[in-house]
Amino acid sequence: MDTRTVGILGGGQLGRMIVEAASRLNIKTIILDAPNSPAKQINAMTEHVNGSFSNPKDIEEIAKKCDVLTVEIEHVDVPTLKKLQKQLPKLEIYPSPETIELIQDKFVQKEHLIKHSIPVAASQAVKSTKEDLLRIGQEYGFPYLLKSRTLAYDGRGNFVVKSPAHIDEALETLKDRPLYAEKFAPFVKELAIMIVRSIDGKVYSYPTVETIHQDNICHVCYAPARVPDSVQAKAQILAENAIKSFPGCGIFGVEMFYLEDGELLLNEIAPRPHNSGHYTIDACVTSQFEAHVRAVLNLPMPKNFSQLSTTNTNAIMLNVLGDKEEKNKELQMCERALNTPSCSVYLYGKESKPNRKLGHINIIGSSMEECERKLDYILSEETAYKAIDSKAKPEKPLVGVIMGSDSDLPVMSAACQVLSDFGVPYEVTIVSAHRTPHRMSKYAIEAPSRGLKCIIAGAGGAAHLPGMVAAMTPLPVIGVPVKGSTLDGVDSLHSIVQMPRGIPVATVAINNSTNAGLLAVRMLGTVDAKYLTKMQEFLLKQEEEVLVKADKLENIGYQAYLDSKK
Amino acid sequence: MDTRTVGILGGGQLGRMIVEAASRLNIKTIILDAPNSPAKQINAMTEHVNGSFSNPKDIEEIAKKCDVLTVEIEHVDVPTLKKLQKQLPKLEIYPSPETIELIQDKFVQKEHLIKHSIPVAASQAVKSTKEDLLRIGQEYGFPYLLKSRTLAYDGRGNFVVKSPAHIDEALETLKDRPLYAEKFAPFVKELAIMIVRSIDGKVYSYPTVETIHQDNICHVCYAPARVPDSVQAKAQILAENAIKSFPGCGIFGVEMFYLEDGELLLNEIAPRPHNSGHYTIDACVTSQFEAHVRAVLNLPMPKNFSQLSTTNTNAIMLNVLGDKEEKNKELQMCERALNTPSCSVYLYGKESKPNRKLGHINIIGSSMEECERKLDYILSEETAYKAIDSKAKPEKPLVGVIMGSDSDLPVMSAACQVLSDFGVPYEVTIVSAHRTPHRMSKYAIEAPSRGLKCIIAGAGGAAHLPGMVAAMTPLPVIGVPVKGSTLDGVDSLHSIVQMPRGIPVATVAINNSTNAGLLAVRMLGTVDAKYLTKMQEFLLKQEEEVLVKADKLENIGYQAYLDSKK
Repeated sequence: MDTRTVGILGGGQLGRMIVEAASRLNIKTIILDAPNSPAKQINAMTEHVNGSFSNPKDIEEIAKKCDVLTVEIEHVDVPTLKKLQKQLPKLEIYPSPETIELIQDKFVQKEHLIKHSIPVAASQAVKSTKEDLLRIGQEYGFPYLLKSRTLAYDGRGNFVVKSPAHIDEALETLKDRPLYAEKFAPFVKELAIMIVRSIDGKVYSYPTVETIHQDNICHVCYAPARVPDSVQAKAQILAENAIKSFPGCGIFGVEMFYLEDGELLLNEIAPRPHNSGHYTIDACVTSQFEAHVRAVLNLPMPKNFSQLSTTNTNAIMLNVLGDKEEKNKELQMCERALNTPSCSVYLYGKESKPNRKLGHINIIGSSMEECERKLDYILSEETAYKAIDSKAKPEKPLVGVIMGSDSDLPVMSAACQVLSDFGVPYEVTIVSAHRTPHRMSKYAIEAPSRGLKCIIAGAGGAAHLPGMVAAMTPLPVIGVPVKGSTLDGVDSLHSIVQMPRGIPVATVAINNSTNAGLLAVRMLGTVDAKYLTKMQEFLLKQEEEVLVKADKLENIGYQAYLDSKK
Repeated sequence: MDTRTVGILGGGQLGRMIVEAASRLNIKTIILDAPNSPAKQINAMTEHVNGSFSNPKDIEEIAKKCDVLTVEIEHVDVPTLKKLQKQLPKLEIYPSPETIELIQDKFVQKEHLIKHSIPVAASQAVKSTKEDLLRIGQEYGFPYLLKSRTLAYDGRGNFVVKSPAHIDEALETLKDRPLYAEKFAPFVKELAIMIVRSIDGKVYSYPTVETIHQDNICHVCYAPARVPDSVQAKAQILAENAIKSFPGCGIFGVEMFYLEDGELLLNEIAPRPHNSGHYTIDACVTSQFEAHVRAVLNLPMPKNFSQLSTTNTNAIMLNVLGDKEEKNKELQMCERALNTPSCSVYLYGKESKPNRKLGHINIIGSSMEECERKLDYILSEETAYKAIDSKAKPEKPLVGVIMGSDSDLPVMSAACQVLSDFGVPYEVTIVSAHRTPHRMSKYAIEAPSRGLKCIIAGAGGAAHLPGMVAAMTPLPVIGVPVKGSTLDGVDSLHSIVQMPRGIPVATVAINNSTNAGLLAVRMLGTVDAKYLTKMQEFLLKQEEEVLVKADKLENIGYQAYLDSKK
C-alpha cells in the first residue's frame, strides 16, 4: 500500500501487532530491539537492528534505514530523535519527539493537560523528603499517590501513601526517582479510549472501554464500558480534546477516572498502541494497530473506521499473564478460550515468566452478559465449556410479562406459553399501576438497561398499566385488555388502545394474550433472524392445521364432522 | 499453544495467511517454496526450505524438520507423502495423502463423490480424439465442458465446447493432458462453503457464500449467499456430507452449482484454504486459516466457531488482481477500500503482474445493500467515498406504511411525519385488501426479504387490511383504525384489534397514526440503539413541553391561560 519502510523502536507485543497489521497491507517494517524479540519473529526482513530503543547509536542506525520512524513504547531517547529530525529532514517521526517528550515525564504531561483545560487530579512536584511528603498529606489528605515522573509502567513507579506512617516506605521504594504527588481520585471505574490522530490533526475515537486492574496490571477490559451512553460520549470528547493538544500523529491510549460524582478526570496518556485497545483486533474492523499504521503513513482513515463492527458487538479482553507458580500453566486458560465460541487467543512468542504479559484473549458476544459468561468459563478450572454454560445464570429475559393483578394470570399465562414455545427468554411478574405506582415506574424505567426488548402488559377495567408503562419507557409495550365482570372487556380495550398522541400501546384483542406473545416474537424477529424463521414456520404450521381440517370436512361431510367434535 | 512445528507445502498467499494465524497462537511454521515467497516474508524462522512442493527431495527435507505437514495447494507429490508416512511414523500429514490423491485428479474426485451419493454433473473420462468428443456432444448436448483431470486452477485446464466446430480448438488447448468431459450444469448461481474437519471426523460448516467469477477467476464473494435460507442450509448439508467422505482433517473449500430448478450439484473440492473463504478473516471470529491450524493440531473447535460474528454481519470479498495495463494501478482500488468504512485490505507481498491474485478486500456491513454500496465505490473511479454515498440509491426502507384507500392518507400521513422526524427510512403506498387482494399478498410475503422490519397498515370500516397482511408475513404489523363516516371508528377498531389467536395486530387508537409511527420507532429501537436513544429523548421533550405549559398555567392563572389559547 506504500513503498516506504517503517522503523519501530521496540519489538515487544505492541511492535509485533503493528508488524502484523503492516504486513497485511504489504508495508515493510524493521525493528530495533533484542534479537528474536516478539516483533522480529514474524518479520523476515534482514535490516532489523539489534539493540535498545534507549540507546542513541542504535536509534541512529535504524533511522538511516527507514522512511518513517515510530515507537511501541514512550521511554525512548528523545534528544536523539530531535537531533535526527534535524539531520534527516526526509525522515518522518510519529508520534513527534515533542509529543513523546510532553508525555514521557508524567508531571510535564499533567501540566500540559491543565494548560489545555483538560480535567486532571490535583498534583504537584515534590522533593524526596519526609517533610515535603507530610506537607502533601496535609494538603491532599491521605491516601494520596506518590509517582515517579518517568519510566513508570504497570504500576511500577507508583506508591499509595496511605498515612504518615507509610512515608518512609514510599521514599525507599521510589528513591533516586524524580517524583510528583497526586491527590487521590475517588473513582468508581477506570475508563480508557484509543484515539487516532491523523497527520492533518483530525482525531478519531474508538469506543469508551472499562479496564479492571489486578496488582496494577490490566486484567480485563470491557468494550464498551458498562457506563451510561452519556458518560461514554463525554469520555470520548474529553479524550479527543486531550489528543488534539499534541502535535504529530498516530494512535494514543487515554486512561481516565470515572468519579463517584459522575465527573471524569484524565489519568494518563500513552502515545502508542495500548493494552486497553487489544479488543479492537476482533471487535472493530480496523484494529488499533492498523489505525496506527494508517496514521503514520497518511493512509485513509474513513469516518467511523474506529467504531465497533456492528451495533450489537460487545467484547471483553483478558490479559494472559505468566502463571505465578507453574511455567506455561497459563496455557490451560488459553486452551479453554480456544474451546469457547467467538474467542480468539493471541500469544506474543515470549517465554513464560510469573506475571509477564504473554498474550491476551478477545471474547466477542452480542451482549455483555454473553461475554461475561464466557469469561467466567475461561477463568474457571472447568474443562468443558458446556458444563459452565448449562449451570450458568439463566439467559437474560428479552420480554417482560406484567399484569395488574394475579387475577389476570389465567389470561396472561397464554403469552408466557407462546414465549416458552418459541424459546424466548422472558420474565413474568405483577406490577399494579394503582397499588404499586413506584414499582411500576422503576420497572418501566429500568427495562431497557436490563436488556428487555419489549413489555407485555395485561390489565382490566380502568386498565392503566400498559399506557403508564409505555409513558415511562422507550420500549414497545403490548397491551392485553383483560375482560372484567362487567362491560365484556370493552372498558379495558378502550382504556388501553385509546392512548393520546405521543405514547403508543400495541393493543391486541380482548383476553388474547396469545397474540401478545406472538407479537413479541415478531418484534424480536427484527433483531434476531432466528425468531423470524420460527414465526414463518409457525404460520405454515397454522395453515397446515386448517388444511387438515378442511380435508377431513370435505371427506366425511359436515354432519359426521360435527359428530366427531362432540 | 502447541510446541509442534507445522511444515507447509507452498508459500503463496494461502500459506502466508496460515502463517499469520499460526503466529497469533505462537505456533511455529516452516515453509517449502521459493525464497522470499509471500509466506516466508512474515516468518523469521531459519529452517525454511527453498524449493518446490512438487519435488520429492524438497518435500523430504521439510518433512524431517516438522511434526505436522500440511499444504496450501493440492498439486503436491502424493507418492512422496505416502512414502514419508511410512518412513516417519511420528509425522502427521493433514490433509491425508489419500484425500489429496482423491481430490487432485478431478475425475477420481467425481467418482468418489458419486460413490458417496453426492450429486454432481454427469461426467466421463474421454480420449483426446475428435470422434470421442463428438460422441460426448451427442450424448450431453452442446455446450459441454472438457476438463483436464489434473493441475487445473482458476479455469486453466477447462474448455467450454460450444459446438462441434470448437472441438479442434479444445483439443489444441488441452493437448497432452488427461481429460474428462462434463455435462453443462444450467446454474443460476455458484455457491461455496468452507468446511473444517477435525481429527475425530467431525465437520463444521462456515456460511454458504456466493461467488462470481470473471474470466474464470473469482471476482467477488457474497457472504452469506443471496439465496433463501433453506437453500443455504441445504448447501451446508451437502458440503458437510461430501467432506465426511474424506479421511484426515483440515479445512476444505466446496464449490457448488445452484441450478435453475432449485437443485444443488457439487462442482469441486479443494483440500485447503480457499479464495471463497477469505471473507472469514473479518466476518467470522475464527478465520478459515486459524480453523485449519486448529484442525491439523487438534486444538479445540467449539460449536458454532465457524459462524458469522453476529447475526447481522454481511460481507463481500473482492479479489485484487494485477491491473491488465498498468503495473500497481490496482493499488488505487485498494486506496479506495482503505477510504471506505468497515473495509480491510490484504496484500500478499507479490509483484504486480496482469491478472495475478495480489490481494483481497473484505467489506463488512450490517446489510448486504450496505456492502454493495461500498463495493460500487471501490470498483468506481471516484476518489471520495462520500460522493458515491450521497448519490447512492436511497436507503432501503425499514418500515412500510400502507393504507386501503387514498382517503386514509390524511390520517396516515402523521405516521410518515413521525418516521421522517426520527430519520427512519420508510415507504408509503396504497394496498387494498378488497380491491387489490393479490397485490396485498405479494406485499405481505415479500416484505421481510425486502428488508422491512415492520408494517403500518391503516384501514376503515370492515378494515381487513392490517389483519390480512399480518396473516401473510412474520413481521410485526401495526394497525391504525381509521374513523369512517358512521360508527365513530369503533367498527374499524374492533375489526383490527379483535384478531383471532395466532395472528396478532398491534392496534393503536382510532385515527392515531402518530402513535403507529412512534410504535414502529420503538420496535426499531430493539434492533438499532440509535432509535432507542432518540425515543428516550422524545419522551423527555414531551415531558418538558408539558412542564412549560404547567409553569405558564401556574404563573398566569387559568383564565389568562384560556384567553391566551384563543
